[in-house]
Amino acid sequence: MSFIGAKPAGHLCIFGAPFDATTSFRPGARFGPEAIRSASYGIETFSPLLNLDLENTDFMDDGDLELPFGNPEPALDLIMSRTAAILSEGRLPILLGGEHLVSLGAIRAAAAHFEDLKIIHLDAHADLRDEYLGQKLSHATVMRRAGEICDLDNIRQIGIRSCDRNEFDLAGKIKAQPQEILTWAGNSPCYLTLDLDVLDPAFLPGTGTPEPGGMSFNELLEALMLLIAKLNIVALDMVELAPMLDHSGVSAVVAAKLLRECLLALEFYA
Amino acid sequence: MSFIGAKPAGHLCIFGAPFDATTSFRPGARFGPEAIRSASYGIETFSPLLNLDLENTDFMDDGDLELPFGNPEPALDLIMSRTAAILSEGRLPILLGGEHLVSLGAIRAAAAHFEDLKIIHLDAHADLRDEYLGQKLSHATVMRRAGEICDLDNIRQIGIRSCDRNEFDLAGKIKAQPQEILTWAGNSPCYLTLDLDVLDPAFLPGTGTPEPGGMSFNELLEALMLLIAKLNIVALDMVELAPMLDHSGVSAVVAAKLLRECLLALEFYA
Amino acid sequence: MSFIGAKPAGHLCIFGAPFDATTSFRPGARFGPEAIRSASYGIETFSPLLNLDLENTDFMDDGDLELPFGNPEPALDLIMSRTAAILSEGRLPILLGGEHLVSLGAIRAAAAHFEDLKIIHLDAHADLRDEYLGQKLSHATVMRRAGEICDLDNIRQIGIRSCDRNEFDLAGKIKAQPQEILTWAGNSPCYLTLDLDVLDPAFLPGTGTPEPGGMSFNELLEALMLLIAKLNIVALDMVELAPMLDHSGVSAVVAAKLLRECLLALEFYA
Amino acid sequence: MSFIGAKPAGHLCIFGAPFDATTSFRPGARFGPEAIRSASYGIETFSPLLNLDLENTDFMDDGDLELPFGNPEPALDLIMSRTAAILSEGRLPILLGGEHLVSLGAIRAAAAHFEDLKIIHLDAHADLRDEYLGQKLSHATVMRRAGEICDLDNIRQIGIRSCDRNEFDLAGKIKAQPQEILTWAGNSPCYLTLDLDVLDPAFLPGTGTPEPGGMSFNELLEALMLLIAKLNIVALDMVELAPMLDHSGVSAVVAAKLLRECLLALEFYA
Amino acid sequence: MSFIGAKPAGHLCIFGAPFDATTSFRPGARFGPEAIRSASYGIETFSPLLNLDLENTDFMDDGDLELPFGNPEPALDLIMSRTAAILSEGRLPILLGGEHLVSLGAIRAAAAHFEDLKIIHLDAHADLRDEYLGQKLSHATVMRRAGEICDLDNIRQIGIRSCDRNEFDLAGKIKAQPQEILTWAGNSPCYLTLDLDVLDPAFLPGTGTPEPGGMSFNELLEALMLLIAKLNIVALDMVELAPMLDHSGVSAVVAAKLLRECLLALEFYA
Amino acid sequence: MSFIGAKPAGHLCIFGAPFDATTSFRPGARFGPEAIRSASYGIETFSPLLNLDLENTDFMDDGDLELPFGNPEPALDLIMSRTAAILSEGRLPILLGGEHLVSLGAIRAAAAHFEDLKIIHLDAHADLRDEYLGQKLSHATVMRRAGEICDLDNIRQIGIRSCDRNEFDLAGKIKAQPQEILTWAGNSPCYLTLDLDVLDPAFLPGTGTPEPGGMSFNELLEALMLLIAKLNIVALDMVELAPMLDHSGVSAVVAAKLLRECLLALEFYA
Repeated sequence: MSFIGAKPAGHLCIFGAPFDATTSFRPGARFGPEAIRSASYGIETFSPLLNLDLENTDFMDDGDLELPFGNPEPALDLIMSRTAAILSEGRLPILLGGEHLVSLGAIRAAAAHFEDLKIIHLDAHADLRDEYLGQKLSHATVMRRAGEICDLDNIRQIGIRSCDRNEFDLAGKIKAQPQEILTWAGNSPCYLTLDLDVLDPAFLPGTGTPEPGGMSFNELLEALMLLIAKLNIVALDMVELAPMLDHSGVSAVVAAKLLRECLLALEFYA
Repeated sequence: MSFIGAKPAGHLCIFGAPFDATTSFRPGARFGPEAIRSASYGIETFSPLLNLDLENTDFMDDGDLELPFGNPEPALDLIMSRTAAILSEGRLPILLGGEHLVSLGAIRAAAAHFEDLKIIHLDAHADLRDEYLGQKLSHATVMRRAGEICDLDNIRQIGIRSCDRNEFDLAGKIKAQPQEILTWAGNSPCYLTLDLDVLDPAFLPGTGTPEPGGMSFNELLEALMLLIAKLNIVALDMVELAPMLDHSGVSAVVAAKLLRECLLALEFYA
Repeated sequence: MSFIGAKPAGHLCIFGAPFDATTSFRPGARFGPEAIRSASYGIETFSPLLNLDLENTDFMDDGDLELPFGNPEPALDLIMSRTAAILSEGRLPILLGGEHLVSLGAIRAAAAHFEDLKIIHLDAHADLRDEYLGQKLSHATVMRRAGEICDLDNIRQIGIRSCDRNEFDLAGKIKAQPQEILTWAGNSPCYLTLDLDVLDPAFLPGTGTPEPGGMSFNELLEALMLLIAKLNIVALDMVELAPMLDHSGVSAVVAAKLLRECLLALEFYA
Repeated sequence: MSFIGAKPAGHLCIFGAPFDATTSFRPGARFGPEAIRSASYGIETFSPLLNLDLENTDFMDDGDLELPFGNPEPALDLIMSRTAAILSEGRLPILLGGEHLVSLGAIRAAAAHFEDLKIIHLDAHADLRDEYLGQKLSHATVMRRAGEICDLDNIRQIGIRSCDRNEFDLAGKIKAQPQEILTWAGNSPCYLTLDLDVLDPAFLPGTGTPEPGGMSFNELLEALMLLIAKLNIVALDMVELAPMLDHSGVSAVVAAKLLRECLLALEFYA
Repeated sequence: MSFIGAKPAGHLCIFGAPFDATTSFRPGARFGPEAIRSASYGIETFSPLLNLDLENTDFMDDGDLELPFGNPEPALDLIMSRTAAILSEGRLPILLGGEHLVSLGAIRAAAAHFEDLKIIHLDAHADLRDEYLGQKLSHATVMRRAGEICDLDNIRQIGIRSCDRNEFDLAGKIKAQPQEILTWAGNSPCYLTLDLDVLDPAFLPGTGTPEPGGMSFNELLEALMLLIAKLNIVALDMVELAPMLDHSGVSAVVAAKLLRECLLALEFYA
Repeated sequence: MSFIGAKPAGHLCIFGAPFDATTSFRPGARFGPEAIRSASYGIETFSPLLNLDLENTDFMDDGDLELPFGNPEPALDLIMSRTAAILSEGRLPILLGGEHLVSLGAIRAAAAHFEDLKIIHLDAHADLRDEYLGQKLSHATVMRRAGEICDLDNIRQIGIRSCDRNEFDLAGKIKAQPQEILTWAGNSPCYLTLDLDVLDPAFLPGTGTPEPGGMSFNELLEALMLLIAKLNIVALDMVELAPMLDHSGVSAVVAAKLLRECLLALEFYA
């Protein structure tokens, strides 16, 4: 069973951004979307947790963008355009990375579409640097850039356990527990960006910059289900799966199962 | 230290069924028995948990069956015959898979030998489909077939977290916690079938169809020790280790350690 | 660049048979078709050797059959039906395995369609056993079964370097060099079956039963180009790529490049 | 960011002992020091847990010893000499293994330098054999040898879950929880020896003799921070990382992060 | 034995450019320089082929540049500056990539330093595209850019076996055999750029875009020794080793041995 | 099909020495014997090259010695004793390593048994150092030690392509082509020691110290068949397979096939 070839009218619209040109440690997130699709054959369409089935879910897989490597601006433009097109049709974009910088393209589109967008950021890394190795656009600066678009105070972070001293001060102001975020966000439109390395590398070894000491699979799943059930999620991304680093294939299965649960929860609650 | 070459009179009789012809996602469980034996060299014969030593345990390793691939019926017949022979000598068969379908051969023999056999099934997957890709005999149908032999109500399942909607209804009726099973089973002869993917893939990545969100090693070990200590276990199998998918070799060590603890507990309590 | 999504009217019609249920040593050929498609993104559409481009070639990729595992007869029936359908439309089937047994389905269809079909078999293994572990249908018996359909004398083998003593006698009668085959086949319709393990494992380590001492990539490519240029090839298959066994990904690239050159040569000469 | 090239006056002095000649199961710990250094590029110098930065820490990396393989005595002599030299300069040696036997060289030097040295041993294995395969010097005997130097009663063990029956009796007398060790050790100079396989292999698969059922990363980190904060640690080692066994690279990152937290805690509390 | 730490006055000056941001298929060439240094420990300093020893050779290893990812221009500037500095001191730069685009930085410096620079290009791929996915600066355009600096007619290519149709026309004009190049180049200063994928992937599987049908190790070594012995080589690079793709480590050893032979030959003939 | 369990009266007597304690670069040769046995299941007992079958061959597999690690002398004593016992029964020992140092144990026994023993040494490395990292007993000194037993002039080397300058002078005197060795050795009893790294790493990547530029599989097979057919081989070893370094498993298959051909040739010509 695969996600590919689902209903064209789907309001949950998946697309991939196979880009990792600014990755500074270990590249390979570009293979994330392909690996998630391939792993989806090994899991059921039905969720015993939610008692829901993808076969009754109105989603589509719109395939991958063809993105140039090197300079990231053209790639971000393509991601922004695709996201904007999906939003303008009243659908909900679900972006599969790629490195975390790809989120910036989607966030730009979402912030342009929704007046008071809030961002919920699950990650091991704060990604709040102003620049990284002299570059303003980088996986390590993506939330700083996002904060320039919609104000840092409209961002809340979950799971952060790595940053430099400067980021530490910023991150301290916007860290939150899932329950706290429910009150904070209220009915505002929320963009949910999930860097899979928020998981402990025991549960997801296939990522470029693993950071020990993270969440278990069940802890993350619980947090996601809570956020989707209670909030007004208008866009979602899932980034930083680097499948070549995990020969067991488990990391891609983890991502595919999280995606299934998110799709089902979005369908049911949206 | 290795399990091979132990006492020939052993009433705990290990044999392997290196078969995975119906595996639908990722094959390789055929290499399970060889990998468990090889990994056994890396662990002690002594268990600090049980304060018991394999060197004082009356078990034997009877090697692997030579099984044809393709059509599964001849393979199941060979497994059934070997299991029946062991049971008829008053010994306790311990089957190492191979994919989960191999359990059906052993269950057929055990159900013929014991009038009121009960089955305890630890697994991530319900395996209760009526057929799979048009096949009645498959890793995905094995517990449905087992239910036709000894009635579904004589089966209890632990750890299930993946199934389709039809299986979900059946599985809901037979799921149980280890403690509940003690009361349910009483003194009845019990067949214990352990699909290693009941473990979270963080603890056992080397399996064909990993399903995130499972038990930790210590949770599984505790459940097994409880079931063996309190119940009348007459046969046991351990299936779905696919060692090629885990280059670290940890998955095989996990299986070998579980096998050691099971042998010791069976010896002490049986 | 990928082969997927090419012209629907293509007379060169690729399809995959992801089946490896009778594989006796190391499975994984089921992942061959997916790996070839994925690897095709890393090579050009243009061939400097042939000065031809896939973009001017009339081929299509018809995707993979969904095949049941276990008993091979239903799978062979599905392969035969698809092959027959393609042939009946005047197109040329190109089957990507899977294990070598899948060729039998296509050979059955081709032999029914063409009266005096000849088979050219490139392989490290003779595959001429009468049965294997008690099974008549197996990767190790496939050419014996083929010989029962169209007479062993209508088969010629290239590259064989592994067999048992019984096969050795049969194989001695039908072995040939590429040049000899040109005369032997004349204008007869020819089915070309390519087991990729005819290559030395230095050039293709990703195969279930590697056999040292084989052809280099350039030797194989030269032989294939000669056979396609000079003979009346009416169907072709490429089997036994097991990509999980080669983490470098080179084996899949080798298969993809061979497929490209075959497509171009078939287009130009057919 | 890397540990290499730090301040030459550093009182925290790291050096590597790339030796694994007595490893009996799976070698490769010799590559531990190189892998920890390489992995250090993927983590920050700053610790959000401790709110401290390596850039304000007075440590140096003194590189690796060049050690002969085969007979371990010459290697132990070189390790002892280097450790003694560091101690005599009033600095704190931090030894990166290599297999666990390398600790013996450093313990010899520390026991000669400090009159009433105590040893805190975190490990999955008791390492208390008197000899192993006829050898007195082995990874499996290292704590027995250490006990001959400074009396077994001056050793406490955390995390042991594998031993033979003889070791079990000895280990029972010296096992302790971190909190108990605080009282026991008081102000005595303490040598802390950390065999990374004390972690569950889910968190650190890259080790020669993985032993399921161990600590999580956070449990270990908490124990280490407590011990370093409250005790008088005068030397520390970290052994048995075998990076080749973990292609994801996570194990080396785990070791590098533990090393960073230990360096920071030692700097702050020493 | 390692190359690191050699004589500071060395006129053969190695430096690394760990950059692969424009790699379009499979990244990882950034780890090339580190892997070559690490592999150098497994080979001798002495060459039986040349009867020369690195220990009598005046080379130095100047370490790696710290390069930003993303936009390639800043990285190219840093490479150009370093190369120019080396040349201005009368030394010979030896650049270790990284992807092939890094050569452009060094070529810019060399073309500015030497009036009539010629370039000898060993590669599987022509790298003569005008742009690639809309980018002018890419591994796939690097020789086209080089041709704009010093005229395409001052470039000769060896080993090309992959290109698109446009490149094919250009490549036809500048392809040559090593012997032909001797006459063509005469005493002109020559830049030698070696993309390691000129080797057949049987000999070097660890590269991002393997192209079957290439040179053997001995064929390449012979060509390099001839070119260095007979020509006036003023700069050299070795690019596109992607060590993570070859778990055997052989590819890095191949690169390290080629580098050793080149260093020795340059020392002896320069 | 496996070599294990063959005729007990076998005059060709295989045994394994799983020892690699002096390996200086990458260990793992200890797993060689187990890997060769496991790989033997994937190849036929029949050789089309020789038209002979192992099933008609009088060989036995005597299993592995249990060898201590660390100090090599006790291990060499055990290897010498086993070899001497086999020779004293008029049988032909076939030793599977392990690292190359294990050959010294067998050579000591053979030199004691046969008055004018000659040694034929196939290897990439001369192994003629007097000591290595201060050790007299090492994989890098093994032929120097052998030369002290039976005079260096009774040794001939094939395939050497790596050594230091001192070894180069010695090696120059004893290098030979297979044909030259036939005349040189005449009817003398010959010990044949085969370090598998004499093969180019394209053909055998799974070895601790790969050295590019070596023989192809067919070149080595031809040399071995010539030597065995024409000379009086009285003992043989095959060393330095390190299977963990080759995840494709091809290296072990190469060793197993060479072993089969050697067994058959020894049986036929001895």
